[in-house]
Parts: sequence; structure tokens; C-alpha cells
Amino acid sequence: MLKLHGFAVSNYFNMVKLALLEKGLDFEIKVVHGSQDPDFLAISPRGKVPCLETEHGFINETNVILEYIEETQGGKRLLPEDAYQRAIVRALTKEIELYIELPARSCYMEVFFGGKVDQAIKDKAKAELLAGVATLKRHGKFAPYVAGSEMTIADVMFLYSFDLACAVAKKLFEIDLLADFPQAKALLEQLGKNANVQQVEADKNAEMAAFIAAAKAGKK
Amino acid sequence: MLKLHGFAVSNYFNMVKLALLEKGLDFEIKVVHGSQDPDFLAISPRGKVPCLETEHGFINETNVILEYIEETQGGKRLLPEDAYQRAIVRALTKEIELYIELPARSCYMEVFFGGKVDQAIKDKAKAELLAGVATLKRHGKFAPYVAGSEMTIADVMFLYSFDLACAVAKKLFEIDLLADFPQAKALLEQLGKNANVQQVEADKNAEMAAFIAAAKAGKK
Repeated sequence: MLKLHGFAVSNYFNMVKLALLEKGLDFEIKVVHGSQDPDFLAISPRGKVPCLETEHGFINETNVILEYIEETQGGKRLLPEDAYQRAIVRALTKEIELYIELPARSCYMEVFFGGKVDQAIKDKAKAELLAGVATLKRHGKFAPYVAGSEMTIADVMFLYSFDLACAVAKKLFEIDLLADFPQAKALLEQLGKNANVQQVEADKNAEMAAFIAAAKAGKK
Repeated sequence: MLKLHGFAVSNYFNMVKLALLEKGLDFEIKVVHGSQDPDFLAISPRGKVPCLETEHGFINETNVILEYIEETQGGKRLLPEDAYQRAIVRALTKEIELYIELPARSCYMEVFFGGKVDQAIKDKAKAELLAGVATLKRHGKFAPYVAGSEMTIADVMFLYSFDLACAVAKKLFEIDLLADFPQAKALLEQLGKNANVQQVEADKNAEMAAFIAAAKAGKK
């Protein structure tokens, strides 16, 4: 059986978890935090979560895991069958990761964990994040899902990136990323009604207090 | 016929160009630089090169283009047939992009274009880059290719990321990324003997002087 390694506060872990739930697949969870411990590096070469344990070995990097699940497991499709449409979904997913999640991530230490981020890094994050949101407005279909009428991995990436980016933009830049983006707001509301999304959220909330305390103590 | 939009100094453009050449596919090149011009944003939503024009429409993001070519065109395979081995190649490709190319990229303005990068961004780039190289040492097979005995998209990403990362590490951090990494050095030398790699390099060198001058003048 597939075994997903990670923890419920990690947004990337939750992307894979939601995909597995949406597909209705059996899987186990092994609770582990990212680290540079040699034992963990042996199964996740950059020391990050999630990683997926399969019968063949471990797989790391969230979008790679999502592709592997899509290619080898049954259940609801999260990538289109048509090669061109699949490319569009992958491009949207990548854009959200590179141009929204990653710039926001460079500020998480200050926004969520009581640390301090240098002004130059915040300035860079702000410029990149605004360009990333503009990209998503330009390229996303939101009909009602990011890539069209069906839920795909682009929605999974969007769901667990955009909320954190909103928190960063609000706290550090006093910008409401949703103010001028009603289609994104509507999609977040719609996804929030999904029972699997609610389960992932409940699991996250149950772990959150302990995680924040550990992170602030430098133990994450 | 496939039409690749971009220019010969762009390392991401050269990744797709090399893949097309290795596969022996017919393609045209449309020379264009990345920009935020509305006409270009209509075909490449983040304003970056390369993008690929297909009979169905445009595709952006390099690894997405590489996957599309792999799935729809003939010629030499650059991804394994086996799903698990394909996941490993994708993970290596992603690790090189996220943990080597992107941190190095944050310093390109100072290293290549005569600009200035804030110390906090350089410090962050250095830490991430060293962790990224350690990841590649840990995960890469170099037998002799990054993922094993066959050339894959991981080698394409490696070839056009690692040289730039080496230049950044040498100029800004006085670190030789190849000093302790003979298998990477050997692979760069081997790839350098490939006729298609030599063609891409010659095309790049022919464009380089004009590009650097334009970039320094703020017109890139």
C-alpha cells in the first residue's frame, strides 16, 4: 500500500493527501517532519516532505508524486487525457508553485513563525508574488476550476498555496490578493465545501498549535 | 511544425532546443526575448521564454514543454518508460531546477549583467545552492548520466543549470562547485562532446555579446 510520509501542517503534504483522498485510494500516513538527518535524506534527498513510499522505492517532490499517482493508480483523474490540455494543467500548476507559493514561502518565517525576514527578500517576494498572481489571473480559467470544468492538480496546488500567499500579502504588504480576484475567492469557497478538503483542514488544525510552538522554538 | 519561441542565450530555451535536436525533430525557431508586453503575455503568461507553439496552441514552462514533446513526438526517449524510473528522473530534474538553478538565478544580475544583488539575497542563494548541490550528489547516479545509463531530461536541466551555478558560486562565494564533484565534471565534459550540445553552444556564443550589451543597458 502507498505510504505518504509527512505531516498535516505541511501544505505540500496536504496536496498529495488530498489527491489520494479525491482518487479514493488506500494509503497510510507516516508522520515525519522534514530534516537533514541522514536517515531521512536517504528517502527524501533534499530533506523535505512529503515523500511517497511505493513498492518500488521512495519518490520525492510533490508534483512528481502527483504525476506518479496519476499514471499508476486508479480513481478520479486529476490530469486531462488530452496531451495539450494536460500541458496546460501542468503549466498552471507550475506557475502557481514557482510564482506564488515560492515567493510567499520566502516570507513564511516572519509571517507564521515569529522570525525576521530581510527587507530585500520581502521586496523581491512582493514583486514576484504580484507578478505571479497577475499570471494566474491571465492564464487561469476558473470555470469554476483553475484549468476549466474539472478539478485537476492545478486546483490542488492553488488551494494549498493561495491561502498562504494571501496571509503573506496581507501581513507584510497590506495587500488583499482576493480583493480584485473574485473568481479565485469563489473557487476557494467551493473547494472549502469538498468533504476531503474539510478532512485535510481538520487534520491540519489538530496539529497546528503543536507545530507552531515547535517551529518558534527552532525545532521544526 | 513545432515552433520554439525564445533566444539562444536563454538557458531554458536551450534545454528545449537540445531536447528537440536530440530527438531529431523538425522545428522552427522564432527569436523573441521575455517581456511583459501584452502580445507576448498572451502566448507566455509569465512573460518568460521559452514557449512552444503547437498546432493546438502555446505551451509555456520548460519542463512542461519537455513532457509534451516526450508524450506527443517521436525520436529518442528522454524519459524512461517505467513509471517509477520516470518519477526518479522527474524528481532529479525538479531538484536541479528548484535547488540549483533558481538560487543561482537570484544572483545572475550581479554575476552576468553588472548589476548589484542585496547581501541577504546572496546569503540565501549560497545556503540554498550548497544544499542543492549536496542533494544532487546524494541523489544523482552519474553512471554516467544524472539518472543512470541513459541521457534524460535531468541531464538537459543539469547541463544548462550547473555551469551557471558554478559561475555564481565562483564569483560571489569563491567556491568551486566542481572541486569535490568529479562525477559532475566528467558528465559536463562528456555532454560537451555531443554534437547537438556543441551546436547549441555555438548559437549561444554567436548571440552572447549583443545580449550582454542589451542587458546591461536595461533592455533585455
